[in-house]
Amino acid sequence: MTVPTPPPPSVRPLAASARSRVPAFEVMEILGRVEQLRAQGRDVVSLCAGEPSVGAPAAVSDSAALLHITGTPALGYTSAIGTRELRDAIAGHYRKWYGLDVPPERVAVTTGSSGAFTLSFLAAFNPGDRVALASPGYPAYRNILTALGIEVVTIQTGPETRFQPTPALLDAAQAAHGPLHGLILASPANPTGTMTNRAELEALTGWCAAHGVRLVSDEIYHGITYPEPGAADPRGVSTWETNRSGLVISSFSKYWGMTGWRLGWALMPEDLTDAMEALAGNFSLCPPAPAQYAALGAFTAETYAERDAVVTSFARARSLLLAAHDRLGWGIAAPADGAFYYYADLGEQLDRWGTSRAYARALLDAEGVALVPGTDFDPLHGHRTVRLSFAAGETAVAAAIKRIVRFQE
Amino acid sequence: MTVPTPPPPSVRPLAASARSRVPAFEVMEILGRVEQLRAQGRDVVSLCAGEPSVGAPAAVSDSAALLHITGTPALGYTSAIGTRELRDAIAGHYRKWYGLDVPPERVAVTTGSSGAFTLSFLAAFNPGDRVALASPGYPAYRNILTALGIEVVTIQTGPETRFQPTPALLDAAQAAHGPLHGLILASPANPTGTMTNRAELEALTGWCAAHGVRLVSDEIYHGITYPEPGAADPRGVSTWETNRSGLVISSFSKYWGMTGWRLGWALMPEDLTDAMEALAGNFSLCPPAPAQYAALGAFTAETYAERDAVVTSFARARSLLLAAHDRLGWGIAAPADGAFYYYADLGEQLDRWGTSRAYARALLDAEGVALVPGTDFDPLHGHRTVRLSFAAGETAVAAAIKRIVRFQE
Repeated sequence: MTVPTPPPPSVRPLAASARSRVPAFEVMEILGRVEQLRAQGRDVVSLCAGEPSVGAPAAVSDSAALLHITGTPALGYTSAIGTRELRDAIAGHYRKWYGLDVPPERVAVTTGSSGAFTLSFLAAFNPGDRVALASPGYPAYRNILTALGIEVVTIQTGPETRFQPTPALLDAAQAAHGPLHGLILASPANPTGTMTNRAELEALTGWCAAHGVRLVSDEIYHGITYPEPGAADPRGVSTWETNRSGLVISSFSKYWGMTGWRLGWALMPEDLTDAMEALAGNFSLCPPAPAQYAALGAFTAETYAERDAVVTSFARARSLLLAAHDRLGWGIAAPADGAFYYYADLGEQLDRWGTSRAYARALLDAEGVALVPGTDFDPLHGHRTVRLSFAAGETAVAAAIKRIVRFQE
Repeated sequence: MTVPTPPPPSVRPLAASARSRVPAFEVMEILGRVEQLRAQGRDVVSLCAGEPSVGAPAAVSDSAALLHITGTPALGYTSAIGTRELRDAIAGHYRKWYGLDVPPERVAVTTGSSGAFTLSFLAAFNPGDRVALASPGYPAYRNILTALGIEVVTIQTGPETRFQPTPALLDAAQAAHGPLHGLILASPANPTGTMTNRAELEALTGWCAAHGVRLVSDEIYHGITYPEPGAADPRGVSTWETNRSGLVISSFSKYWGMTGWRLGWALMPEDLTDAMEALAGNFSLCPPAPAQYAALGAFTAETYAERDAVVTSFARARSLLLAAHDRLGWGIAAPADGAFYYYADLGEQLDRWGTSRAYARALLDAEGVALVPGTDFDPLHGHRTVRLSFAAGETAVAAAIKRIVRFQE
């Protein structure tokens, strides 16, 4: 073994790329502390995770077990955008929930919605393009876009627009930053749970069409919604109901509870289909094959009924939180129309703790309740807010409320 | 439903990004024709696929079945760079095969080697950086780099350097294109199967260290090798045996035959670890969880023995091809030190068919043998070459040789 010659001083030292400077998440520190406390034997209620505590549908797990036992089908590479059978099944899902006729040729199965975002951003945007997104919002949008050289235009939103962008806010963003090339929408949104109704969505897709802006619509929480009885569009409105020039992104992770399986999809506008298929082959070869075959069990009447029951259990946990609002004494909370998040301003608690980060740390140490400080979702106002995931279920949420009230006394 | 206002003529029409213009693969046309012929009832021998016909290890399939039956562990998100248990097991693999002590903190489990390449390229290179790679080579390297805004410097190689880069070729590339920032090595390489031995590898890592060039070493075919009895480094030499400033990329797809499972890994130099972990969380959340738990079965003595027997069967198929060289009457073939590819110049057949593409189409239609034309791997000389995958096994290869000889008569 030779020792390589040390580089002459003129040689640039190796270093991580500038574009990989992704901010560290506050939640990682909290999760690290949760692990420590649990290792010490402490009973911790964690409302951090963006995943249902109930796992995959029974039919999906059964079919996964069977395919591993029988070895059929062979688990080699599939088509880069997924098996035709699964793309047909996803098209069927759009007929069932939205009355939409989606050609299977426009469905790309992806490695989670994460894979769909990467492919969509690469196919739709060039380096230097400007893409708008709402803050508070899911931080990975911003970080993926930035790493791909795309300029992020932040649209600061608040309760007055239900934390969603509007045509007026988009006009203002263009006036301030120059023409936009893309817009990311999320309904239900993470961390606020707010949804855009049909009229709001039509206004936004109309604005995009009029301004040559590509819409990327994150619909991964569709079906996890808490509509009033008889309300219109109880599962959520898909942007493809109004306009097919944008991308729809969805996933098996949330409604179907298959987070770790890494399976999602994109609906591709016609002009991006070839590009996305080629990129998919190069960037990922194909989505996970075992998950693709097993996921065919996701679309039966039994499985929909099973998952709707899970949503009903989320609804009970959500009701507990909404009912506890006055008792918690926090400030404004987002409506939580869908998803499984309660996002609230800490109100008077900030007088005592200063920031949501300090509050979250103290709460975890004192009462063993883990929340996510809002800073991960909103760099500007997140020091005032926290996100609670009620996907942990009714019991965990009830215990957490009791402990939080005690902590604040 | 409103019809959105048509955009005014001044609005830029939506279009796919320039960076997503990935060239179409010749092999896709061949695979499409294979499907057509099979649908017509034709008996087609396909030597196109880069995947073993033997599937996952028995222990891995069993353990996957069991975890779906018992529901343990819960298949939620894991750490972004994989479970600690699997990273420990991969570190153990480096002790076993290479006598290397790899800290599990330097192992990132990824969504196939594809995921490892994307993370590595993002973390190591900025847009505009120059990264060298050998041609012929695996086309996705080039396409991922290009889509990420990295300039590809092609090092044209031939049989005189066993289709591998050398310090002299790298010096010439720098003289022609300016300072390099990265180098991709593959040993065994796709499509040629050639390997760099320890001395060659030390020369290359030494050159990289002396020039501030980050090495990315594709070692996914390690273990699928055909050494003479008693030869040194029978599994392949890992670049981390010589220098840890580069990245090692590997996978469960080839030696373990788990192509569709989408599970690979990277060994990360210390200065890239934080960046890669942060990027992994944002770009993929985590690698597929069922595959991660099941893959723990890959590292037992029984599984290594099982896989070595598969390699022995590849060796028999390889011998058939090497022995058929004169009968085929082709030109120079690459040595096929490892992997499961036979890459050869078509020699006199080109007088008749003009290009490997025309040859491959005619062979498929006349005799039902599917090969990959070399153009996908080498834009310059690939019109003269073909790649045959002998992962299909001895029987398929024997049948293919017989048919090719008949076709050429």
